[in-house]
Amino acid sequence: MNDRSTDPVADWWRTSIIDMEPGRIAFRGLPVEDLIGALSFPQMIWHLVMGTPLDAARARLFEAALVAAVDHGPQAPSIAAARMAATCGVGLNNAIATGVNMLGDVHGGAGEQAVALYRDIAERHEGGSPLNEATRDGLIAFRAAHGRFIPGFGHRFHKPVDPRAPRLLALVDQAAAEGAVAGTYAAIGREIDAALACEKGKPVPMNIDGATAVIYAELGCPAPLARGFFCLSRSVGILAHSWEQMEQGGRNKGPTPPGHRWTYDGPSGTS
Amino acid sequence: MNDRSTDPVADWWRTSIIDMEPGRIAFRGLPVEDLIGALSFPQMIWHLVMGTPLDAARARLFEAALVAAVDHGPQAPSIAAARMAATCGVGLNNAIATGVNMLGDVHGGAGEQAVALYRDIAERHEGGSPLNEATRDGLIAFRAAHGRFIPGFGHRFHKPVDPRAPRLLALVDQAAAEGAVAGTYAAIGREIDAALACEKGKPVPMNIDGATAVIYAELGCPAPLARGFFCLSRSVGILAHSWEQMEQGGRNKGPTPPGHRWTYDGPSGTS
Amino acid sequence: MNDRSTDPVADWWRTSIIDMEPGRIAFRGLPVEDLIGALSFPQMIWHLVMGTPLDAARARLFEAALVAAVDHGPQAPSIAAARMAATCGVGLNNAIATGVNMLGDVHGGAGEQAVALYRDIAERHEGGSPLNEATRDGLIAFRAAHGRFIPGFGHRFHKPVDPRAPRLLALVDQAAAEGAVAGTYAAIGREIDAALACEKGKPVPMNIDGATAVIYAELGCPAPLARGFFCLSRSVGILAHSWEQMEQGGRNKGPTPPGHRWTYDGPSGTS
Amino acid sequence: MNDRSTDPVADWWRTSIIDMEPGRIAFRGLPVEDLIGALSFPQMIWHLVMGTPLDAARARLFEAALVAAVDHGPQAPSIAAARMAATCGVGLNNAIATGVNMLGDVHGGAGEQAVALYRDIAERHEGGSPLNEATRDGLIAFRAAHGRFIPGFGHRFHKPVDPRAPRLLALVDQAAAEGAVAGTYAAIGREIDAALACEKGKPVPMNIDGATAVIYAELGCPAPLARGFFCLSRSVGILAHSWEQMEQGGRNKGPTPPGHRWTYDGPSGTS
Repeated sequence: MNDRSTDPVADWWRTSIIDMEPGRIAFRGLPVEDLIGALSFPQMIWHLVMGTPLDAARARLFEAALVAAVDHGPQAPSIAAARMAATCGVGLNNAIATGVNMLGDVHGGAGEQAVALYRDIAERHEGGSPLNEATRDGLIAFRAAHGRFIPGFGHRFHKPVDPRAPRLLALVDQAAAEGAVAGTYAAIGREIDAALACEKGKPVPMNIDGATAVIYAELGCPAPLARGFFCLSRSVGILAHSWEQMEQGGRNKGPTPPGHRWTYDGPSGTS
Repeated sequence: MNDRSTDPVADWWRTSIIDMEPGRIAFRGLPVEDLIGALSFPQMIWHLVMGTPLDAARARLFEAALVAAVDHGPQAPSIAAARMAATCGVGLNNAIATGVNMLGDVHGGAGEQAVALYRDIAERHEGGSPLNEATRDGLIAFRAAHGRFIPGFGHRFHKPVDPRAPRLLALVDQAAAEGAVAGTYAAIGREIDAALACEKGKPVPMNIDGATAVIYAELGCPAPLARGFFCLSRSVGILAHSWEQMEQGGRNKGPTPPGHRWTYDGPSGTS
Repeated sequence: MNDRSTDPVADWWRTSIIDMEPGRIAFRGLPVEDLIGALSFPQMIWHLVMGTPLDAARARLFEAALVAAVDHGPQAPSIAAARMAATCGVGLNNAIATGVNMLGDVHGGAGEQAVALYRDIAERHEGGSPLNEATRDGLIAFRAAHGRFIPGFGHRFHKPVDPRAPRLLALVDQAAAEGAVAGTYAAIGREIDAALACEKGKPVPMNIDGATAVIYAELGCPAPLARGFFCLSRSVGILAHSWEQMEQGGRNKGPTPPGHRWTYDGPSGTS
Repeated sequence: MNDRSTDPVADWWRTSIIDMEPGRIAFRGLPVEDLIGALSFPQMIWHLVMGTPLDAARARLFEAALVAAVDHGPQAPSIAAARMAATCGVGLNNAIATGVNMLGDVHGGAGEQAVALYRDIAERHEGGSPLNEATRDGLIAFRAAHGRFIPGFGHRFHKPVDPRAPRLLALVDQAAAEGAVAGTYAAIGREIDAALACEKGKPVPMNIDGATAVIYAELGCPAPLARGFFCLSRSVGILAHSWEQMEQGGRNKGPTPPGHRWTYDGPSGTS
């Protein structure tokens, strides 16, 4: 048995998340048997990752964000890759990992970037700028750093409206009306929406990433966790599709039907 | 636009999980905006993966299983690997995928195997054997196929009792008393418990895998999904630890403190 | 500094592969600076993985197997997934890992299974059976355990001949003529070829997996390493395609063109 | 059969790497059967990834870089994670992917960054600056963008010298003397070496990443491929360790011996 306080090997891995002794598991100080049946799954996620309490009203918002992002169909590369993996003779966990591994900066990062953008605008606003000016300046600063594309707004497929966003925003409004959250970030999101519409001369409405980012910002979570929580949410769809594909069968299923091969555009062969 | 009914390219990827048109997303026939705020996250998981309804009482059981298995600390290889990945300059999604990828047959498969064992015993019992005989025969058959180790019972660390198991079983009992589930698999689990104790002359109590397997079996889900759902649950701990490690910092953090290198047992060098 | 011989932490990770001190790295006893420029890359692979010497003639065979299997195009799920990953904002290493992760039992396991089959036939033959009977019995035993499909023979695309196989076999014949290998497994491979042709009434010729398995068996490597070495070989194509895709650009590229969506075959929606 | 030139589905995946018809496989225009036995494995890697010829002298340099970086022992997180994965009941390919997935910006990116730094210095020099000034300015610019740490120089373990670097540089010098490469980047590497030594008042010698980066820069490959090729090289060690661990056995092997648990630094428990 190690004396933990003076064991450099034990100290090599430090955590505030979990403590264990034989017969005892505690998550951030609370025994697991007191949490089972008492915390909802979203509350447990928040407890483990954030380490702060999440009351029922705020938990409903968090839950809505988790529910909304579970899947976007088999043309999303993460889902497609997981389905292909499911035909390659690997375990279900490997198929899930294949999909989650692909939720990178481009596929899974928009929510994270949107939270960061919202926060920057909020700070400008708290610093004294009116909201419309803070938004304008925030957008300019974001584009200077990252290019024209504003994460969380517009959708290449769901035109004119991403059906998830207004529903999520309505829940934020309701929670704000009840005093559960401040509503600051919903206002910022709508201000961006308005600014982009004005700029483009047509709606560039908030999408799922922009709307879940409003929730994550309202709940006070760091920007990178918007991606982290999105990974948990999308893992559900990745699991559902991996399992459906395993049930359908297939061996080494490629992206397109075999009759449509790829296009070769390299040098002509000589033998 | 494709006419879906006659498009072999579209037919290459078929799914019952999700349908989409611009501005419309439906999960197994239900519009996403009707599900957000209406389904709990566990209910959405079940809806997407299983495609059947899950009433509130059964959802509570499912939720308890998801809550109970979120983490088992940084000496679990999946958690350790995710923490190490978090110091290697990869995205949070890559760190999560690294951990999930390791929930293989040995690390993540016990629940799946336990469900299969329970089902086999249930079938023997339904076929006319008394429960104790069905259990005895089921254990013999399992060991003939897989070796002595019975998945879901005993724990190399939590002695004498894994604190998660009795709490989960109590929830199953309560749900059975309310008629939400049949309670068949709780009885089977306890019968195995008794058989193993008798065999060993000391308790070999049900562990987390055995207890969540009771829940998954009661809820009627296929054995492989016990692993699938475990992956969703453990992803929470993997995320929490990956994020904590990113906040702690560190670069290329190896498994043991640098001062304790590995032991080389190969041929002696000559230069 | 640890005294390695009595340090249980150091002993936790034991290896015969590598020894290190500050300023010194030795692979299986040989200083790295003596190996650089002296061993070919295939020889280093063999040295590190197998720990035995590989003379020049045998190294040429091993090299041919590594060269032959580098790629099979973007309809292979591993290549497709890596290309998709390359558009998702992850690192090149993550894209490669995505592809390698999919070389499972079905996508990457045929060579491993073929080596095991060859070995079984060789043992029957060494036990006294004539080669044709050993082959017949080996095929029967393999099918009883694994189903009808014989790994390493026939190809769903390359009909009538997989162009890699005869070239590899010719190199084995040449090495056998020079005494570098025994040629036993080339003979077994051809015997299977003949047995399957007789059975089907048409050629079911050896494919890349069957031919590389001949080489791996001739060289004496354990069956699972046929998959391991295949992973190293196919990593080359996975890297080439990931990099080409990064250069082409694209964001969140799905499997099929966006105009051809998937086919939904679930319940009809009601809102 | 598709008419490739007008098939938008085939056009969705375009490549210059591989062309196929039944019975024919060509890599960048050359039939595979002509390459097997003719190209070395490094030459095939170069042919597939770079698409340009690599003569024997340059191939020897490339081979030396691939040979030098195969392994750095079980305290490297990629190797440790792969070994842990090998005890979790996943396939050998999954264990390899686990390791490769961790070769991110911090663990696998130094070579890539070093090539970029060298190129920047080379451009400054070509633009008219003397080499020492170009180096000084390149280092200043690099640090302004990326922080103080210069990739490819110094080593936290191998003090005073990383034994791989001088051997690789000697091979570059030899190739330059034979006219196979220009030697420009070896000179730049040495100039950085001198500048850092002057700055620190003690040697900060070139390490493996700095030395392989010299080779990759001399050979003309884009900076990101320094990481790509490193992934191929380190995959060898990852495979060797995964396989050794599988042979050693073990189930769910964590990072440190079980007796040394982690240190918990969170809130004290109350129940």
